[in-house]
This record gives sequence, structure tokens and C-alpha cells, in this order.
Amino acid sequence: MKRGVLVLGHGSKLPYNREVVESVCSMLRQMRDDIMVVPAFMELCEPTIEDGLEELAKSGVSEVAVVPLFLAHGVHTLKDIPARLGLEDGKRECTYECGGVQLRIYYADPLGPAEAIARLVYERALEALGE
Amino acid sequence: MKRGVLVLGHGSKLPYNREVVESVCSMLRQMRDDIMVVPAFMELCEPTIEDGLEELAKSGVSEVAVVPLFLAHGVHTLKDIPARLGLEDGKRECTYECGGVQLRIYYADPLGPAEAIARLVYERALEALGE
Repeated sequence: MKRGVLVLGHGSKLPYNREVVESVCSMLRQMRDDIMVVPAFMELCEPTIEDGLEELAKSGVSEVAVVPLFLAHGVHTLKDIPARLGLEDGKRECTYECGGVQLRIYYADPLGPAEAIARLVYERALEALGE
Repeated sequence: MKRGVLVLGHGSKLPYNREVVESVCSMLRQMRDDIMVVPAFMELCEPTIEDGLEELAKSGVSEVAVVPLFLAHGVHTLKDIPARLGLEDGKRECTYECGGVQLRIYYADPLGPAEAIARLVYERALEALGE
């Protein structure tokens, strides 16, 4: 059973959100080459969520972890994105029909309050203070 | 010279953005107890940016790293927040007047495309896939 990860960014008119999403995808591909990794954006950028899922389906993927590349849950991750995936309220799994292919979707949590995030904030603070 | 960090979240009607910002503040305080750490929010939550800077100024802080707790630069980090801080276009430092106290502000970068972010995405993907 071929598996994939959709790394789902917010999207932006500026290029920086795309850069983070695409860099994260490259890093994930280096961590693990048996899982297909595809970027997508909720709004303002392409590929869209639907484009990304179609790419995975066309490549023979049947199980996809959709990971919202957001720091925390919010209206986007709890309402907007689940609606696009066809997830019922509060559910984490669904089947997504895509050009005759059925993708099994597993909806992941956003990054959350991790120690690694605090360490990055600390680095950014020290850089700014010139320490 | 007493220094501080303002950890600046987007803000949200839901509680999750606040949870991440406050957790990151707690973790930073454990990393380093000689720098005062204060949370703030760009919108929808309090303390506001102005509230946070006032708290730092009242505590005798004179140099502040303002770290936007955002994944990437975008309109918020490049336009909206600098305008609130009184930063001139493209500048990273300014003096912020606050109740007769002058705070020297050093504006930091957001998290950016770090390896640590990719590892968190990978963890979230595997959790969702039940691996």
C-alpha cells in the first residue's frame, strides 16, 4: 500500500510561505524515501489541496497523511481544511474520491507547542539581539 | 541593561494559538532566567503588542527582541507588525516610546524553514498514519 504526505501550507501572496512548505517537503523526502511527499496550499498559492491530492492519487498512493503546516489549530485547521477534505465534524479519517481513485485520508495535527519551536524562537531572539 | 523577549503570536478566536504562544514563553523562561519573556498577540487576543511592550518597559527592560511566532514572513510580519512597532520600511531596530520609557526594539525573523519544523511534520504524519 503506497503512502503519501500532503504538507499543507496556508498560502500567501508573498513567496515566503511557499519557501517554508517546499523546504519542509525536501527535508521530509530526505528523511524517508518510501513515502511520497507533496506540497499544497489552502489559499493564494498552487498547488491547491485538490491538486495535491490528485497528484498523490495519480502516483498510485492510497493512504495520505494530510499535515497542516500551521503552528496551532484554529478556524483554518478545524473548519476550512476539513471541509475541503470532506471530513465530518471531529473526524480524522475519510475517503476522498479523486478521478476514480479512492484515497484514504488521515488528517494530522498542526505542529503544536513543541520544545523545538521554543528553541527556534530563542535562536531568532538571540540573532536579533546580536548575542 | 535588562533585556526582554516579546513572543508575538497571530491571535485567534479559538484558544489554541494562545496555548502555543504561552507554552513557548514558559519553555523560554526555563532556558534562560536572565531575560524577561512576555507573550503578545497581533490581533483577536490580549495582551496586545502595545500591552506587552508596556509590561516590559514597566519591569525595567530596555532592550527587547520582538519575535514573530509565525512560520514564515508574510504581510503580517513585513507590514502589519512593523507598522505597530514604528519600524521604518526594511529596518530591524527602532526606539519605542512607552510611558516615558524608551525601549530599544530588535525585530527578529519568524521561525523559517528549519530542520526542526520538518521533524515535527514527520512526527505528526506518522501519528496520523498510526505508524
